Amino acid sequence: MEKEKVVDRLTLIGKEVLKYVQNQEFPIIKLPLRSVTNVIYDNKQKIVKLGDKFVIRKSSNVRQAKIFSQLLWIAYFAKENLLLKDRSCSLRDLYYNSFNDIKIKFEEQDESDKLVVELETILGCPRENFNIIPEEKSSIFGDLTVEYMSPPTHRGQRVKLTTDPDGKNIGLSLATVKFVECNAKIVIAIEKGAIFRRFVEEQVYKKLNAILIDTGGQAPRFTRMLIKRLNKELGLPVYVLTDADPWGMHIARVIISGSAIAAHIPELATPEAKWLGIYATDIKKYNLPSIPLNELDLHRLETMKRDPRYEDRFWSSQIEFFEKYKQKAELEAFSKYGLTAIIDRYLIKKIKESQ
Amino acid sequence: MEKEKVVDRLTLIGKEVLKYVQNQEFPIIKLPLRSVTNVIYDNKQKIVKLGDKFVIRKSSNVRQAKIFSQLLWIAYFAKENLLLKDRSCSLRDLYYNSFNDIKIKFEEQDESDKLVVELETILGCPRENFNIIPEEKSSIFGDLTVEYMSPPTHRGQRVKLTTDPDGKNIGLSLATVKFVECNAKIVIAIEKGAIFRRFVEEQVYKKLNAILIDTGGQAPRFTRMLIKRLNKELGLPVYVLTDADPWGMHIARVIISGSAIAAHIPELATPEAKWLGIYATDIKKYNLPSIPLNELDLHRLETMKRDPRYEDRFWSSQIEFFEKYKQKAELEAFSKYGLTAIIDRYLIKKIKESQ
Repeated sequence: MEKEKVVDRLTLIGKEVLKYVQNQEFPIIKLPLRSVTNVIYDNKQKIVKLGDKFVIRKSSNVRQAKIFSQLLWIAYFAKENLLLKDRSCSLRDLYYNSFNDIKIKFEEQDESDKLVVELETILGCPRENFNIIPEEKSSIFGDLTVEYMSPPTHRGQRVKLTTDPDGKNIGLSLATVKFVECNAKIVIAIEKGAIFRRFVEEQVYKKLNAILIDTGGQAPRFTRMLIKRLNKELGLPVYVLTDADPWGMHIARVIISGSAIAAHIPELATPEAKWLGIYATDIKKYNLPSIPLNELDLHRLETMKRDPRYEDRFWSSQIEFFEKYKQKAELEAFSKYGLTAIIDRYLIKKIKESQ
Repeated sequence: MEKEKVVDRLTLIGKEVLKYVQNQEFPIIKLPLRSVTNVIYDNKQKIVKLGDKFVIRKSSNVRQAKIFSQLLWIAYFAKENLLLKDRSCSLRDLYYNSFNDIKIKFEEQDESDKLVVELETILGCPRENFNIIPEEKSSIFGDLTVEYMSPPTHRGQRVKLTTDPDGKNIGLSLATVKFVECNAKIVIAIEKGAIFRRFVEEQVYKKLNAILIDTGGQAPRFTRMLIKRLNKELGLPVYVLTDADPWGMHIARVIISGSAIAAHIPELATPEAKWLGIYATDIKKYNLPSIPLNELDLHRLETMKRDPRYEDRFWSSQIEFFEKYKQKAELEAFSKYGLTAIIDRYLIKKIKESQ
């Protein structure tokens, strides 16, 4: 969500509250219910989101009065001290800032964290959009020229995402750039840095006209925001490359459908993204060095079988194959055939098949 | 260590072995002993390093013959497939590559990992210098223009380290750049990304003419390599800013003196670097929100008291204060006084005091 829109929505929260007060009524705030009973999987849109149930925060309720004010303080802080001043802070920082700014202190960081999620739910956008940012490490490389919007020192500056062979950090500034010129045709999101580096060294970005993204494991939210933008704004197909194990499958699935924990901000999902593998069936097909699934892996597969995101025929068949073979394999396993085998023998073929 | 020198040393290993063979003798390789009995703290140099004890790997010994060949294979792979081809790989990758290239397989990755450390010891340089690289996430920002040496696609390209407000990734390429022009006067290494981001947003790099580094917790080896280079090649004073807890102290100490586990590559240490705090004594001085030390913290302090790196009067007194107060505090705790307090009230003053 664009900064102006977030500022508008934050202002609106205050205006609504003010209206109640002016009418001499206790203000209330209505927001979607964030409980498992209200998390649904939209099979058509292929995303996880919240249902129709709502909850109402009442300032008239003695037990809710404190968190009502705390919520308003966070909204105020996000607007005045962060967005309008072009500053950012972490969840931890926000907690410590409360020591100075309000009489009603948070006892534990846990309390302020929860209210940040509540604010996300009210606004319908991730906290990254109101500059409360996590420490995330993921990178991007490709033929895309961008223009920074933040911080003010860098606003208007342009940079091409091929200048940095170690990959450009995907932080607040990069996730909120304006796209200026893109000569890439596809996006490849990769689970790990070692393979990302290989792809940069072997010029996969040129060979396949691809923007490369290192998700650093489970893709952080800035990364998912950026992947979504590349797909939506530039119309680029997105491919996700992971290890052949339940965790790798889930990394791909979360990029495609979102996560249950972030069901209140479905805009992070990219339903058009495709999982390239490594599939369970590829382990035998390519005769890859493999490792037995451990108990944790098997338990994870059990959970996935009950998850509506995996009901799709292809995905559920891969879960079955994992359970049958009881083996997993990593992306690096292709190095059995030499350092570039993962590109020459696998990646290029898979992308062709997926198109 | 420069690439040419590493290639020379790798070649030398082969030549030495060849000499033995030509003389119809079983080859041997002599290397410093990497056991605790041979790890010493050089009080004058302020670094952890290996002592005078040596160990000899004999190809004539039946139990050693296999690892002798494996060690040679790794040296061969590092020279021919990595350095000379301008490629890099991870430890995991190296292990999988062995499946293809040699008859004598490693049973577990653990075995190849150990021999990589052995090769580091023989060469006297970190594996990063022979392109076996870890996944590390740390960043840099400042008025320094650099020229890339690797990969070949980027050789000769120049970039200023202020172009990227999210901080530039410190990977193989950035750690091995040539320094072209530096207008910064100091280096500030920071334990966490949230504060690094704050410093970029508040233009600390201008206010204090500083190169900023986010170590992302314990500084990864590429980061320590780069810090050392900034200090040695450019003569920049280095300051380390951490949380006020035993772990923060140790982050600073490892940058200054190196780690026991890397005693065989003392060139990563920067003895001239200074710890800026937050000191145990600052918690009360600045009336910072603090958290009780837990059992793990207290146990860590006990270990540090037996560590020669902490014998120095100031450092040992800080350990005593921690034990007395039984409290710790984070860098974000300064946000109690507002988002920029850590800069205005602490950083600027501390650097002046340290100069």
